[in-house]
Amino acid sequence: MPSSSDINNTYLLGIDGGGSKCKAIIVDADNNVLGEGISGPANPLHGFEQAVNSITESAQRALENSGLDLQLKDLTAGVGLAGVNLPALFEQMSNWAHPFGQMFLATDLLIACLAAHNGSDGAVMITGTGSCGFSYVDGHPYTIGGHGFPHGDKGSGAWFGFQAANYVLMSLDGLKEPSSINEKLLTLLGIDNGLEMVEVIAGKPAAFYAKMANLVFDAAEEGDAEAIAIVKEGAGYISGVARQLAKQNPPRISLIGGLTPRIKPWLAKDVKDSLAEPLCAPEMGSVIFARQQLALL
Amino acid sequence: MPSSSDINNTYLLGIDGGGSKCKAIIVDADNNVLGEGISGPANPLHGFEQAVNSITESAQRALENSGLDLQLKDLTAGVGLAGVNLPALFEQMSNWAHPFGQMFLATDLLIACLAAHNGSDGAVMITGTGSCGFSYVDGHPYTIGGHGFPHGDKGSGAWFGFQAANYVLMSLDGLKEPSSINEKLLTLLGIDNGLEMVEVIAGKPAAFYAKMANLVFDAAEEGDAEAIAIVKEGAGYISGVARQLAKQNPPRISLIGGLTPRIKPWLAKDVKDSLAEPLCAPEMGSVIFARQQLALL
Repeated sequence: MPSSSDINNTYLLGIDGGGSKCKAIIVDADNNVLGEGISGPANPLHGFEQAVNSITESAQRALENSGLDLQLKDLTAGVGLAGVNLPALFEQMSNWAHPFGQMFLATDLLIACLAAHNGSDGAVMITGTGSCGFSYVDGHPYTIGGHGFPHGDKGSGAWFGFQAANYVLMSLDGLKEPSSINEKLLTLLGIDNGLEMVEVIAGKPAAFYAKMANLVFDAAEEGDAEAIAIVKEGAGYISGVARQLAKQNPPRISLIGGLTPRIKPWLAKDVKDSLAEPLCAPEMGSVIFARQQLALL
Repeated sequence: MPSSSDINNTYLLGIDGGGSKCKAIIVDADNNVLGEGISGPANPLHGFEQAVNSITESAQRALENSGLDLQLKDLTAGVGLAGVNLPALFEQMSNWAHPFGQMFLATDLLIACLAAHNGSDGAVMITGTGSCGFSYVDGHPYTIGGHGFPHGDKGSGAWFGFQAANYVLMSLDGLKEPSSINEKLLTLLGIDNGLEMVEVIAGKPAAFYAKMANLVFDAAEEGDAEAIAIVKEGAGYISGVARQLAKQNPPRISLIGGLTPRIKPWLAKDVKDSLAEPLCAPEMGSVIFARQQLALL
């Protein structure tokens, strides 16, 4: 392994690896993005080999995309990953014989938070396929939720879709009044009855249910009472996460993730009023993290 | 295959095959049980080979246990199975080159219902690891729920355990008041914090969660407000299933399954008052079904 003085720290790699894809950027000294690359899943909980292959591939693509005459071994990488909140996976990833000059590893939550607040202290609520709350204040990380699907991740895309599926099955049984959710969901799944629905949804992962989230918000915005109840319950949870995070006194708090534009209007007013726009994309958080770590060396 | 006249229909086999075990009985002409046998899982949804092996094994054991000088090929079997409500699995099981003289195949729901009402019309609510409602009136089968875990099966043991796990994770995050459920659940799992809990519960099947159901009822009976809320929601669903089944005008309605003694006190009064004691065990329902089918030949 080269000493840090051998490495060109003008250019940095920033990597954000999650359960469905891995994104890498290469930046110059002023954090201008010179190249980017995307590859497959990189959550080591779902396979170490796949994760390290995706990380390497996304980095290689970003480097090629930049046109810089460098190799991965010439570069320092900040790597933010889902799954490494589990100590065993953090250790396994730390021991990876990575292709970079140096690697600084962090959780996807920390790099998302650093990105949202451009490296300053703050908090984030993340709601996409999953959901989670995280704050980083005075060097102290604090996590709420993010327990995974289906036992946790309330207020996430998967949770909204799951509630919709529960509801439709009950209404097809005559145990709930039918609502506009029924037709939207059966249409999305391309089926027309409950028995087919059970065959289609049995054993499906979070990403499958997350695809149903938008129709719940569509129905709620059209005034469907059942959809409104589901949306209010999920948004109420995210508001509760925000208030719990606020007790850590973060200077800024942001809402991020794919469900942000849908769920934001449904948050409690005090929570909505407290939100600050995220300042950078998550992969830039990995760059920021790497610079902070380099400054400590 | 021998014609029915070659087969000794004095003695009948009754088989009840589910997701965790398969039970067989052999009875005489008066339905006295002469022998019984138990084997492993027999839901063909989880594996056709395993299911047919379990069925054969349980039958062989029942025959040995009876001491009768007969072989499986000399006997007519009534076979009630989980999973065969799905048409493809019913067809696959029907085409099985079974070892019996004759086999009559039915869903586990139908045989449970026939057993509860000793072959007469009626309805059952089943709540064990899963939950389901079923009625059989004038030859018309009608099913409510039983959609599986985690997307359905409200009011089942798995559902109660899942609600308890959801609740504990939220209370460990400070988003719900802690209750006596917390200590009971962490003790049962042999852990002491939320991160360990997530590792222990991730990806677990219905049977895992069903083990937590009793502690929810224990807490509710001790007056724990959160447990009471969970129990009332689950019991309310089962009461709703009962009222929906009552619309089919079943002469009798019974509550069966492992959770019966715990959930019965929490049902709505009108539902509780409508319940009739089940008359036979489910495997006897397979015998009753086979006799009914033989009478039709």
